[in-house]
Amino acid sequence: MKQKTFVLAPDSFKESLTAKEVCKAMESGIKKVFSDAKFVHVPMADGGEGTTQSLVDATDGKLHTCEVMGPLGTKVMANFGILGDKTTAVIEMASASGIQLVPKENRNPLITTTYGTGELILACIKHGVKKIILGIGGSATNDGGAGMAQALGIKFYDNNNQLLGKGGGVLDKLAKIDVSEVSPLLNGVEFIIASDVTNPLCGEKGASRVFGPQKGATPEMVRQLDQNLQHYASVIKSQLGKDVSTIPGAGAAGGLGAGLMAFTNSKMEKGINIVIRYSDLKNKLKGADFCFTGEGGIDFQTKFGKTPFGVAQVAKAQQVPVIALAGTIGRNIEELYPEGIDTIFGIIPSASTIEELLNNGFQNIERTSENIARLIKITQT
Amino acid sequence: MKQKTFVLAPDSFKESLTAKEVCKAMESGIKKVFSDAKFVHVPMADGGEGTTQSLVDATDGKLHTCEVMGPLGTKVMANFGILGDKTTAVIEMASASGIQLVPKENRNPLITTTYGTGELILACIKHGVKKIILGIGGSATNDGGAGMAQALGIKFYDNNNQLLGKGGGVLDKLAKIDVSEVSPLLNGVEFIIASDVTNPLCGEKGASRVFGPQKGATPEMVRQLDQNLQHYASVIKSQLGKDVSTIPGAGAAGGLGAGLMAFTNSKMEKGINIVIRYSDLKNKLKGADFCFTGEGGIDFQTKFGKTPFGVAQVAKAQQVPVIALAGTIGRNIEELYPEGIDTIFGIIPSASTIEELLNNGFQNIERTSENIARLIKITQT
Repeated sequence: MKQKTFVLAPDSFKESLTAKEVCKAMESGIKKVFSDAKFVHVPMADGGEGTTQSLVDATDGKLHTCEVMGPLGTKVMANFGILGDKTTAVIEMASASGIQLVPKENRNPLITTTYGTGELILACIKHGVKKIILGIGGSATNDGGAGMAQALGIKFYDNNNQLLGKGGGVLDKLAKIDVSEVSPLLNGVEFIIASDVTNPLCGEKGASRVFGPQKGATPEMVRQLDQNLQHYASVIKSQLGKDVSTIPGAGAAGGLGAGLMAFTNSKMEKGINIVIRYSDLKNKLKGADFCFTGEGGIDFQTKFGKTPFGVAQVAKAQQVPVIALAGTIGRNIEELYPEGIDTIFGIIPSASTIEELLNNGFQNIERTSENIARLIKITQT
Repeated sequence: MKQKTFVLAPDSFKESLTAKEVCKAMESGIKKVFSDAKFVHVPMADGGEGTTQSLVDATDGKLHTCEVMGPLGTKVMANFGILGDKTTAVIEMASASGIQLVPKENRNPLITTTYGTGELILACIKHGVKKIILGIGGSATNDGGAGMAQALGIKFYDNNNQLLGKGGGVLDKLAKIDVSEVSPLLNGVEFIIASDVTNPLCGEKGASRVFGPQKGATPEMVRQLDQNLQHYASVIKSQLGKDVSTIPGAGAAGGLGAGLMAFTNSKMEKGINIVIRYSDLKNKLKGADFCFTGEGGIDFQTKFGKTPFGVAQVAKAQQVPVIALAGTIGRNIEELYPEGIDTIFGIIPSASTIEELLNNGFQNIERTSENIARLIKITQT
């Protein structure tokens, strides 16, 4: 039998293994059957949690940590990655401004700020990067990215020429935007916003109404936040000439999308497509015999831009069969077969609690991969 | 692609699906991928629970029910099967005399009796069978099969020529065995005892010491029961000329093995081998492309005579690859690969309670079988 090439392109298994660790578990299992096979590890992500780690791992980059302002104003430690090309950085806004940083009882999008995300951006640029990939899921904020802008040196004033404070709750006072002192570091830096969200900034499908409640907003707060963002957009339009109120995706991450569009050179792209490009997945798949992918959870929604779907799209074009592993198999996975995910296997050995499964991720992926490889072997001899 | 033949030879998934239902779930899944395939259903068992149902299903036989004496003397409804050949019956002794019929607080092997098993044997013979396959796992009894013998017409007397009562606790009084009134129905009937147990009747590894405690015997009761069975064997030896005290397997089912050897024309055989023979598995596997098997639980102990192991032995000889599905995957399944089980897949989709898994057995087997078939398909095109 000729030497086989397995491309391993999983997402992380959330709270259990990074994508790189999943690759290792898959290889360990398959290698017991195809001992002389070639393995290509392509740790993947879809723009959500784990994107920084996966892109760093996929490109032999480096992970950095720095102290920034958290969503409530206190200091937090946040991550960013410098990719192997040394000119591209990757940030997850949630690392600095994420909902997981705010205890449930303190969640209040009137006061939470994206200021730390701005600081994280500056920290990246100081490493000399010219491109920043910015994953913007999981925010605790609803400030339209005003906090980020403040960290970048943009000044927001009220009617009395007083500087505005932080949080979505003060944006109704916004009267003047002064961009003259924006950090010169931003010059020539391009932002790629990784987002699957198409919500506009305001209104029925806007940031405040759709995402505000899960960040702790009461119905009254939602109304106020939505009005504030409308006012914010109108000031941006009149003073900077940019209309962010109607752009799809401006409502992502509590309006951080709008802030990035207003104050930086940015474009928005589906997270999985960014990762596919930067990980060079297409070239790595050329001539491969099998592509393994996987994610902590797989169900019919996987086809809306999750990693196994994105990987399958690329692999299908290269005519490489796609085998997916899932920590949890959810509803209607048959909808994924026509999308190029050829077959899907669960990894759970027995009736288990979630804690047990998270602890045993490596061995469960390893064992399942081994048995998939065993099945491949018997069907080919 | 030429038409494929799938032989489906699983055990039951205990408390979830009969072996026949597992076959149906497997076919339903595979058929979504290989719509024109040929399916051969061979519901299997290993002599334990489900053997009657599986052999009836595998041979197009018939299941019968009758009222017999339960282990505590009260009436219970018990099953037996008449196989498709109409000359062979199959009984699980547990159906009449099983531990599951005795509430935990009433478990007392001094008084539990195999009388109902004897009645069940007579009920079979009245259907005209000449062979009885007798699965003897799961007993509540420790009476050396004396109860069964009593039901068959054999008389046990004490020193005062009084008939003995029932249960292992009275066997110390045994003085005389009268076989003159044994049922003439037994003439020419051959018993095949399905048992994997090699324990002798008495002593360190005897029925009382090894299996007594799990039937409710205290240490004092264990000592008494063991002495009683020794006495029972010595009376059998002196009056019938049969030495059951040293025969391997005589200690199975609380000494029912010894009773069958003493009072019937019986031989002992591994349960799985009996089922393989009666289900005609070997012939059904000839020329098949794949053999699916499976059981509720698979681990390294599967190689000690469980169904997937037995099926794999036969399939291996026919060079048919074996794919096993397991409700629960236990420890060290890699020990099964060299035994001919080529690959093993779990069926659990997500963190679940045992109750949820038992309820969703069909769809979990169906989905897993479909994805195995999908993998087979992509590796063969």
